[in-house]
Amino acid sequence: MLKVALIQQSNTPDINLNREKLVDSITKCAQEGAELVVLQELHDSLYFCQLEDPSLFDLAEPIPGVISNIYSELSAKLQIVLITSLFEKRAAGLYHNTSVVFEKDGSIAGIYRKMHIPDDPNYYEKFYFTPGDLGFKPIMTSVGNLGVLVCWDQWYPEAARLMALAGAQILIYPTAIGWTSNDGELERKRQVDAWITIQRSHAIANGIPLISVNRTGHEYDYSSHTEGIEFWGNSFVAGPQGELLAIAPTSEEIRLIVEIDLNKSENVRRWWPFLRDRRIDAYESLTKRYLD
Amino acid sequence: MLKVALIQQSNTPDINLNREKLVDSITKCAQEGAELVVLQELHDSLYFCQLEDPSLFDLAEPIPGVISNIYSELSAKLQIVLITSLFEKRAAGLYHNTSVVFEKDGSIAGIYRKMHIPDDPNYYEKFYFTPGDLGFKPIMTSVGNLGVLVCWDQWYPEAARLMALAGAQILIYPTAIGWTSNDGELERKRQVDAWITIQRSHAIANGIPLISVNRTGHEYDYSSHTEGIEFWGNSFVAGPQGELLAIAPTSEEIRLIVEIDLNKSENVRRWWPFLRDRRIDAYESLTKRYLD
Repeated sequence: MLKVALIQQSNTPDINLNREKLVDSITKCAQEGAELVVLQELHDSLYFCQLEDPSLFDLAEPIPGVISNIYSELSAKLQIVLITSLFEKRAAGLYHNTSVVFEKDGSIAGIYRKMHIPDDPNYYEKFYFTPGDLGFKPIMTSVGNLGVLVCWDQWYPEAARLMALAGAQILIYPTAIGWTSNDGELERKRQVDAWITIQRSHAIANGIPLISVNRTGHEYDYSSHTEGIEFWGNSFVAGPQGELLAIAPTSEEIRLIVEIDLNKSENVRRWWPFLRDRRIDAYESLTKRYLD
Repeated sequence: MLKVALIQQSNTPDINLNREKLVDSITKCAQEGAELVVLQELHDSLYFCQLEDPSLFDLAEPIPGVISNIYSELSAKLQIVLITSLFEKRAAGLYHNTSVVFEKDGSIAGIYRKMHIPDDPNYYEKFYFTPGDLGFKPIMTSVGNLGVLVCWDQWYPEAARLMALAGAQILIYPTAIGWTSNDGELERKRQVDAWITIQRSHAIANGIPLISVNRTGHEYDYSSHTEGIEFWGNSFVAGPQGELLAIAPTSEEIRLIVEIDLNKSENVRRWWPFLRDRRIDAYESLTKRYLD
């Protein structure tokens, strides 16, 4: 059994304060026995993509760098595998939304650069993030081979499948998603349901467990064009049949500690041998934009 | 708005009786205004794949042929688009699990041959059905471009995606799935949840509605190796955000009549533009069995 921790947090404009809270929560998770700790997307700052402002590229840092070193040292101190989500400065004018995975000794086990980049009102990510160029490769760690993906990737069954085909034992999604003020009650429910459902489906299709960590709380739109985003929390863990093992509330900061049985995948895949029957001879058009 | 009908039925060893019941139900659906009627997988007979018996190939019929003509005439008489699921004899030793779609004038709008063939205890389909060789092509009808897939296909996001890329406006799954007697209560719940969840996820990923029709009732295992299958019903319709529009009970024969708004897909895809951001440059390995 692997003890994993999810930290669902509400952030403020004060990066140092956010990080202090995170460090405190991570430490508590480690003290409670978690070997793998997963943070939400861009956990150090506000979700800054609500407006397009070139000065916000100042938030980005090289990897490895000053910021990643903080988490490296923390991982080593607590002897945990830590999934972070950072704004990476790769070169002038070249930035990525990057998950850095730290090993228990503080070394970087690997990085994943977000492959699918959204762009819609309140989520202007195409301005900030160059689409990842590292592909869908799981990151091998002492607690397992981790299929780390980020937020918008979670809507793409292709991404989860490629991670599973490459040997991922768990799918992991740091996320920042919420409602805008003009979403009515039914629409809000549909959106959260869809978000949970499609991620659970990746666990099912591939017979592996899944961890999704979302932020919570309201964040202002500093462009003043909208009333901002209300992040919907609902961080959760699903087993290899998509069964919910734990789920966080919508509006509460919370640490979830959950035990995952990685051996269950073997049994589930024997009874639901989806990988056996994939029609790889007939999938070629998946690399097409549209078949018109 | 398109009025669709789902017919969830319990079958007996008497094929004529099963078909009489079906014809009666289809007629009632048409009288209630359904323009599109969807039947369960292999609706004429018992689910005969619980044992491997060469004599059962006698159930297969050419298409077009005597059996398909019955449904052709019914479609024309009732002026409906009808989704059937037949055991196709293509040549001696060459059989398929084939969905035949009839137009309102009784003509065959198109056929789909089940692409993914399961084979596990109680479902020995690889013995009976040659994997389809027509690919994932929607069938154009007067009520829309229909992405017809069959049962085991429903576990494969690749199949749904390819149908959507080829212009499918609705995903449709005739199905025969149930529990075996050694499944405990929790396992039963997990299986049905997974089955509903992964299909809803295809609606979500592709922004189109989905119809799934399963059989109900218990059927004996004539090999006497097991206690047979208890088909779990739960036929349902989901909208383009995966929202459940209607769902049938587990153990009851039922007709569901549901209105689907095909125009909703346009709006849903504007807000969730998943097709825009697919990383087609990075999906090539989806045509590989495993990346080792």
